[in-house]
Amino acid sequence: MIGGPARPAPIGLRTLTADSNDAVPPCAATPVLRLKRGEERRIQAGHPWVFSNEIDTAATALSGISPGQAVQLWSSRDRFLGHAYANPHSLICARIMSREPQALIGPRLIERRLEAALALRQRLSPEPFGRLVFGESDQLPGLVLDRFGDVLVGQIATAGMELLRPQVEAAVRKVIAPRALYWKNDSGARSLEQLPEFTGAAFGEVEDEIAVRENGMDFIAPLAQGQKTGWFYDQAANRRRLGAYLKPGARVLDVCSYVGGWAVAALAHGAGSVTCVDASQTALDYARRNVAVAGAGLTALRGDAFEVLKELHDRGERFDVVIVDPPAFIKRKKDLAAGQAAYRKLNQLGMNLIDGDGILVSCSCSYHLPEAELLAALEASARHVSRFVQVLEAAGQSPDHPVHPAVPETRYLKALFCRVMRD
Amino acid sequence: MIGGPARPAPIGLRTLTADSNDAVPPCAATPVLRLKRGEERRIQAGHPWVFSNEIDTAATALSGISPGQAVQLWSSRDRFLGHAYANPHSLICARIMSREPQALIGPRLIERRLEAALALRQRLSPEPFGRLVFGESDQLPGLVLDRFGDVLVGQIATAGMELLRPQVEAAVRKVIAPRALYWKNDSGARSLEQLPEFTGAAFGEVEDEIAVRENGMDFIAPLAQGQKTGWFYDQAANRRRLGAYLKPGARVLDVCSYVGGWAVAALAHGAGSVTCVDASQTALDYARRNVAVAGAGLTALRGDAFEVLKELHDRGERFDVVIVDPPAFIKRKKDLAAGQAAYRKLNQLGMNLIDGDGILVSCSCSYHLPEAELLAALEASARHVSRFVQVLEAAGQSPDHPVHPAVPETRYLKALFCRVMRD
Repeated sequence: MIGGPARPAPIGLRTLTADSNDAVPPCAATPVLRLKRGEERRIQAGHPWVFSNEIDTAATALSGISPGQAVQLWSSRDRFLGHAYANPHSLICARIMSREPQALIGPRLIERRLEAALALRQRLSPEPFGRLVFGESDQLPGLVLDRFGDVLVGQIATAGMELLRPQVEAAVRKVIAPRALYWKNDSGARSLEQLPEFTGAAFGEVEDEIAVRENGMDFIAPLAQGQKTGWFYDQAANRRRLGAYLKPGARVLDVCSYVGGWAVAALAHGAGSVTCVDASQTALDYARRNVAVAGAGLTALRGDAFEVLKELHDRGERFDVVIVDPPAFIKRKKDLAAGQAAYRKLNQLGMNLIDGDGILVSCSCSYHLPEAELLAALEASARHVSRFVQVLEAAGQSPDHPVHPAVPETRYLKALFCRVMRD
Repeated sequence: MIGGPARPAPIGLRTLTADSNDAVPPCAATPVLRLKRGEERRIQAGHPWVFSNEIDTAATALSGISPGQAVQLWSSRDRFLGHAYANPHSLICARIMSREPQALIGPRLIERRLEAALALRQRLSPEPFGRLVFGESDQLPGLVLDRFGDVLVGQIATAGMELLRPQVEAAVRKVIAPRALYWKNDSGARSLEQLPEFTGAAFGEVEDEIAVRENGMDFIAPLAQGQKTGWFYDQAANRRRLGAYLKPGARVLDVCSYVGGWAVAALAHGAGSVTCVDASQTALDYARRNVAVAGAGLTALRGDAFEVLKELHDRGERFDVVIVDPPAFIKRKKDLAAGQAAYRKLNQLGMNLIDGDGILVSCSCSYHLPEAELLAALEASARHVSRFVQVLEAAGQSPDHPVHPAVPETRYLKALFCRVMRD
């Protein structure tokens, strides 16, 4: 049982009070950050981030701003650009939450954003499972909220959102009213904003495991011990797509399976057998339980994916469908070359396990690897093992993870559904 | 009624005879083209095209090759690269059809390619409707075949495929056995290969109209008077996707509607009313008939899409869902800037017709406009009319138009499903 109140916000700054609302004139309460001449262009074109070297610090010193503080952004030509929260210690020194002068950062704005986020998800699915808030794409930068029935799991990535946490919690109670809200703020990325890691329930009590419903299927997943929020809803739409490409009775290999989301989906779509490969025994234990709920048995292989796939090939094992869904090999731009080589190698090992006319689902959640580069990796893999590849569908993340058209970072997931044949 | 034999191939060259097969040693029959040093790299990486400046013309003169003739490609280091057909008068002077030394260009290879193409389409759908052959992506460069039940409609774009036409026709009879095969070789792009335009049945008889079945819906479309092969199967998967985003009773606007494929799909997904805009009265007449089959009425507006959308806005008309699916605004790279402006403008006009919380489906079939540029156009449109846009799904063409991972040109269609709200 994981319960009790979350640790208090580690930054003890003044936040907008709970009764601040849109009627307050924007100029009264919040300090101004003025951009250098010309630096407003990207912002006016829709981008919500300001970088620290774009501030006219002679006019408006960043040093006077505390981490997370709400600010107004103005252009050098006295044009209001937006309400943002700032962090002078971060490369991205301000993130816009609103472009309306009257819509200050405060409880009412957060409620409105949550209501808009909820309306979209209700349009997409009647069931209360999936990503509810996806940061910049929902105009709530730095905030992620996932729904697991009446439990919400959240992640906060920025000092500004951390400061707004009490208001987010209040808005969640009011707009969503879940039984519990659990903060899983254990991402190393928080250090970029000088935030400590912490986990715990904001309100309500949560179990060690969470129940997940996806595409009509039931799963269990670890919460505190799980990856990210416990579940990868970003692949939900792709797991649904799998049905279009799977032949009845197919032998399916799920590489970097985590708790078996793809394997169970494959069984639901008529797979004859499923094999999961993962480095984590905990993940494989959950995969076995999830597959059992689907009424099937699982071959679970623990180990390094590269080595396990090589061994499978040497043993003469072959599959009709191979799903390659590894963790991000390219976390930073400087990892690009090594990461590309890893994607090429893993996909090559996967292709080599396909005999005759099969399907490879090749995924990458590395934002720094554009789709064109993943295609190039696949083609290089294909040439090495004399296969001909046709990409039947080039998909991204689920619609509950919308893309902000001005923020390429929000389009991070690639899932290429490929037919693989011998040359 | 359009019938009778098609005009004979305009190029009267020696082709491989009908009894040539894979057992013939490759060196015996076909001339060699040798690449300059290093120019084999792109080919070995999977690309099927050779450009004329990559040939070592001192070793192997292009001038001795007739348009469309089969050749062997070799690297400067005496490595066999593939069997291709050549055209000395084209910038792309050779296109690879096979990388196996024993698999010569001839009847058996074409049959094998057709069998592989058919196996994929049968995997995708039990119904004989859709794209059967998509050029390079099916290792049949220059050939397109669409299925309309027991009628096939084909297009040939290169001299090499034109020369193989009798073999293609024989293979179609053997592998597919349709009632009729109709060549719709009226694309202006044929002039790049110095091929004249012609249309007509290779065998069987076809009507002026063709019956189309897509996603369980029935349509009629013009054949000889229609665009491309008469139908845009590349949007079939996207028209199916529309259902996930449409609210019951939605008012739907189909911009550049052609014969109403999107409008009928919208009605099937629960739309309350549909309006089609197109420049062609013929297209709108067919749209009206197709919508009538779906048991609904159509508001058909003939005219320039830019002007009609502006008029609709001025009249105060508003829609819940706007589909913008124009013809390619960017046919050549030099049209990029003008084309981008056109996409920006048309999407802006479309967004401006959405009040409250609506859906814009923004499509581009211009290969020269990458998805990132279409996203930028959408964001610019959104800023101009103070809308916030979330891209829920970034899709491409239907899976029966597979992408060749080494040929970016085969990934041409973008369909962005966007939620549009006021700022």
